[in-house]
Amino acid sequence: MLTVKEAQILINQQAKNFGVENSSIENAQGRVLAESIFADRDYPPFNRAAMDGYAINANDFIEKGIRDYTIVEEIYAGSIATEKISEGDCYKIMTGSATPLDADTIIRVEDTEQFDKKVVFKIEQLKTGQNIAKRGEDKKEGDLVFKKGTKLYAPEIATLAVLGKKDVLVYRLPIVSIISTGDEVISIDQPILSHQIRDSNSYALEGFLKNYNIKITNRKLVPDNKELLTQTITEFIYSDILILSGGVSMGDADYVPEVLNSLRIEKVFHKVAIKPGKPLWFGKSKNGVVFALPGNPMSVQVAYKIFIEPFLRKCFGLTEPPFLKLPMAVGRKKKVKFDEFFPCAINNEEISSLRPSLVNGSGDVTAALYSEGIALQEAEREELKKGDIVKFYYW
Amino acid sequence: MLTVKEAQILINQQAKNFGVENSSIENAQGRVLAESIFADRDYPPFNRAAMDGYAINANDFIEKGIRDYTIVEEIYAGSIATEKISEGDCYKIMTGSATPLDADTIIRVEDTEQFDKKVVFKIEQLKTGQNIAKRGEDKKEGDLVFKKGTKLYAPEIATLAVLGKKDVLVYRLPIVSIISTGDEVISIDQPILSHQIRDSNSYALEGFLKNYNIKITNRKLVPDNKELLTQTITEFIYSDILILSGGVSMGDADYVPEVLNSLRIEKVFHKVAIKPGKPLWFGKSKNGVVFALPGNPMSVQVAYKIFIEPFLRKCFGLTEPPFLKLPMAVGRKKKVKFDEFFPCAINNEEISSLRPSLVNGSGDVTAALYSEGIALQEAEREELKKGDIVKFYYW
Repeated sequence: MLTVKEAQILINQQAKNFGVENSSIENAQGRVLAESIFADRDYPPFNRAAMDGYAINANDFIEKGIRDYTIVEEIYAGSIATEKISEGDCYKIMTGSATPLDADTIIRVEDTEQFDKKVVFKIEQLKTGQNIAKRGEDKKEGDLVFKKGTKLYAPEIATLAVLGKKDVLVYRLPIVSIISTGDEVISIDQPILSHQIRDSNSYALEGFLKNYNIKITNRKLVPDNKELLTQTITEFIYSDILILSGGVSMGDADYVPEVLNSLRIEKVFHKVAIKPGKPLWFGKSKNGVVFALPGNPMSVQVAYKIFIEPFLRKCFGLTEPPFLKLPMAVGRKKKVKFDEFFPCAINNEEISSLRPSLVNGSGDVTAALYSEGIALQEAEREELKKGDIVKFYYW
Repeated sequence: MLTVKEAQILINQQAKNFGVENSSIENAQGRVLAESIFADRDYPPFNRAAMDGYAINANDFIEKGIRDYTIVEEIYAGSIATEKISEGDCYKIMTGSATPLDADTIIRVEDTEQFDKKVVFKIEQLKTGQNIAKRGEDKKEGDLVFKKGTKLYAPEIATLAVLGKKDVLVYRLPIVSIISTGDEVISIDQPILSHQIRDSNSYALEGFLKNYNIKITNRKLVPDNKELLTQTITEFIYSDILILSGGVSMGDADYVPEVLNSLRIEKVFHKVAIKPGKPLWFGKSKNGVVFALPGNPMSVQVAYKIFIEPFLRKCFGLTEPPFLKLPMAVGRKKKVKFDEFFPCAINNEEISSLRPSLVNGSGDVTAALYSEGIALQEAEREELKKGDIVKFYYW
């Protein structure tokens, strides 16, 4: 059986981007840059006053020992100085203003006393250049600010605004279709019988995909019926990503692999050494890929985090999903020789550590709740001891 | 001067919820429940087969030593058994099916050999109840599943679907208005002069608020002009949350506190012992609250994370924002006796640790980039050593 890593490699080999398009930065949050972004000018764009105070030529203070200065002009943020300073002169200047080039140092207002047009500095030492953010000290015009393949969160959007980028080139989003299968699965709208359960997998996937701004294009519930499965898969196979849940295991009504095969969708693999979610089927269609996941809700959520999200990120030119390496708050044993993923909450006593979520038995409702993500107990680690460090992915 | 904790307490005293409304679960991601949610029935709702296999009465196997069984019926997920089993009988059963009450144990298909209507079990031991998830073992009908004041992410939305909750009661979102002030600040649409900068603060705030599904209702750029400030604040003061940036410091054109005062908006405090962002002004209007932040982009982003987001969460009945406690990857000194927040990236060598972002000087462009959040060096800790544990908030 393939290991998780081997399966991830085979999946990621199918990654391709979905084209590019323009987006206003207001709508680009969660999207991924398809262009590199460079500084349009120096940053700071001028020698910017970092304090309210008085701008002088430091030489007057240090070499010539002058402590009383004449104010020749007041400079506000957004205005430009029109006067020059000579020996013993200064500008009164506000935070954020452009310091004229004939001044090189600012004394903050707290260290001064002003009388009309005169000011006295009540300090004995200064450092040339103090309280001025020099033009270009952060970035020079033309410097790289964002690499292509950067995911945009609030701070990135704000920085694009700083740089005057109203629109950016981003990767297009894939067409994603979801088919939930199973005779026992009914829609949330229907009255329910005691031996039935409601479809929740399509909601979980829809929710996760929102983190990438992806909307589900098609979504359908199909019973364990070969003809209906064939028909629905045929209808949705044009998708970049088709995700099925249910019907991939060893049961007599698990028709999904058979139907996919009959439609000549090329199987890349079936089954991975992972718990939960072993019966995962993955293949490629003419236009995209097909993930057929087991129907169990926890398996679907783990499969999304461990296989689908890394694939998506690869398509967008991103690195693997963000993770943490944290110590276990308690020990944990496992029986199966597979990579095992288990839901955890973060415990913030002395240092952040991981506490496996208390799941009552099957965990139908509680497994993914009361947890902040999933941690990995690797195949070869039979026992995790308190303090052992494991990889953790936020939901 | 108020400490950060004192300021947070004064701010949070103004918290109130913004009313409630219904939302479909598809649109509820990022929203907060305004009702508690209980299990509508037992979960699992029936004795669910956890494996494909054969369901028997364990007594036949253990007490009576029977190894060969007669299959009386095949049970698929979504179907109901119509036959009963007697001594030496079994059901063939698929994962996810409702196990009839006269069977109590399932032997998985891998441990059996089937010949027509007969099956032989190739195991010598079994545990009564094995491979069955018992009805109600996860949650009983009427049990609490979600407390009022739960923020909804993908796993919570999926669980609401399991429970058949198509619509839920959530807290309404506040009306938020943003005013960016400063003669030097121009809109991203305008051509720019060398002593000017573009408004980015409203974009940062807009981006952060999206994590709570909040859209900005009003947004305006106002120069350092008392009349225009008065006019715009008057226009937007009906907001639940009014956020200004710029004009709150000691400079001669810092009119914001004066204008707020002239409009009889009650000041709760002005200035907090925090770096960056000391000149923060906070007050209450007739309908809501006013945050007047310094104009520096990093100050705005820190003020959002440390003051505005905790306030919002309090309004929604949530706990303080999620954080981690992680060790420093390197040491760090500070000069000011304030709580200091600094941007960090997460370093995942052996254990997750924090590496302060390299900021070139003023960090106009780079400060919030190349970082995943901000860490806190508390007022009294002059020096952080490598390995010291600090609080960290994701952006």
